[in-house]
Amino acid sequence: MLNTPSFNTQHDPLETLIKTLARLQGLGPRSARRVALQLLKKREQLLLPLAQQLMTASEQIQSCHICGNLSLHDPCLICSDARRDRQVICVIEDVDDLWAMERTAAFSGLYHVLGGTLSALDGIRPEDLRIAPLIARLSDPQHPVREIILALSATVDGQSTAYYIADQCAKFPELKITRLAQGIPIGGELDYLDEGTLTLALQSRSAL
Amino acid sequence: MLNTPSFNTQHDPLETLIKTLARLQGLGPRSARRVALQLLKKREQLLLPLAQQLMTASEQIQSCHICGNLSLHDPCLICSDARRDRQVICVIEDVDDLWAMERTAAFSGLYHVLGGTLSALDGIRPEDLRIAPLIARLSDPQHPVREIILALSATVDGQSTAYYIADQCAKFPELKITRLAQGIPIGGELDYLDEGTLTLALQSRSAL
Repeated sequence: MLNTPSFNTQHDPLETLIKTLARLQGLGPRSARRVALQLLKKREQLLLPLAQQLMTASEQIQSCHICGNLSLHDPCLICSDARRDRQVICVIEDVDDLWAMERTAAFSGLYHVLGGTLSALDGIRPEDLRIAPLIARLSDPQHPVREIILALSATVDGQSTAYYIADQCAKFPELKITRLAQGIPIGGELDYLDEGTLTLALQSRSAL
Repeated sequence: MLNTPSFNTQHDPLETLIKTLARLQGLGPRSARRVALQLLKKREQLLLPLAQQLMTASEQIQSCHICGNLSLHDPCLICSDARRDRQVICVIEDVDDLWAMERTAAFSGLYHVLGGTLSALDGIRPEDLRIAPLIARLSDPQHPVREIILALSATVDGQSTAYYIADQCAKFPELKITRLAQGIPIGGELDYLDEGTLTLALQSRSAL
């Protein structure tokens, strides 16, 4: 399958390494071969630091037990930051979405990482996501939550997950449930937009 | 530059790992972040095996001192294979080109890995490549070489390297120096071919 050289046996550490590299997102069998070569050419500058950093990251980085963020600390620096608005929780699919939100510097509340979206196709059910811990956070009388922002993908799975969570939150009558606005992205040209987005942007038009 | 989250300090092992991953061929800052997340999510199945395999590969895989191939053995399995034609040496730029040649199963001679091509722009001079070891192999009276095949890229740098080597080999009057044929690739449509290739293919046309 990998088209690796025939003179390599199955236990060849190079072939094993290439197969593992090919499992990384964005790398296929061909680029995995190139990366393996690159690593073996630069052992001191690249291969050994990478191996070491993988071990360090694995030992030191943990999931925050409150929000699910990856951090050196538990609770993470966001959850333990006193300056953040503890009454607003932004619900995101994964840690990279959390990073994307942080890059905007436009949000000062807390986060809750779901770990994915519901998916009938992939067999991902509510109990596979961190939905129960979210409900537990919302139920905590010591830390009242005013609003949850469902910042999930504008896909079928993302939106059905949003509706599922909104449904679960119906028992908190005081809680405001919001989602990200949908419309024309900044710099977007009408000509290139899909009809769904354009229809939505028209329906949700705002006064100038 | 990496747009990493502001709450990560410079010594965060996650940020360090992402920066190293971003140096791998085919991965940019964005995909490096995704790979780091993927690795941390699958510590037992992916991160730790990868770290271990990197160490194993670094310890066990070495360069063949004869041809420059990467192998568990030195000399490598190709150089020590008695069934291969020791009078023909195929000169390639890098180990992945050697793998590509081996996949064809159309060549049964030996190899010589140069480690790159001459490049005025990148400041790569003849002494930076394994050209002197090639001349030494050709000069060995105990292992006479009948032909060298210059299987180098059809780029300016590849072809100037080929001419440089051919020039260096002028002192071996018995040695046949060849290069790969250039022309229309199999499955290639004339319409999509560049003019240079088409001109070459026309000039080098053969009788049916």
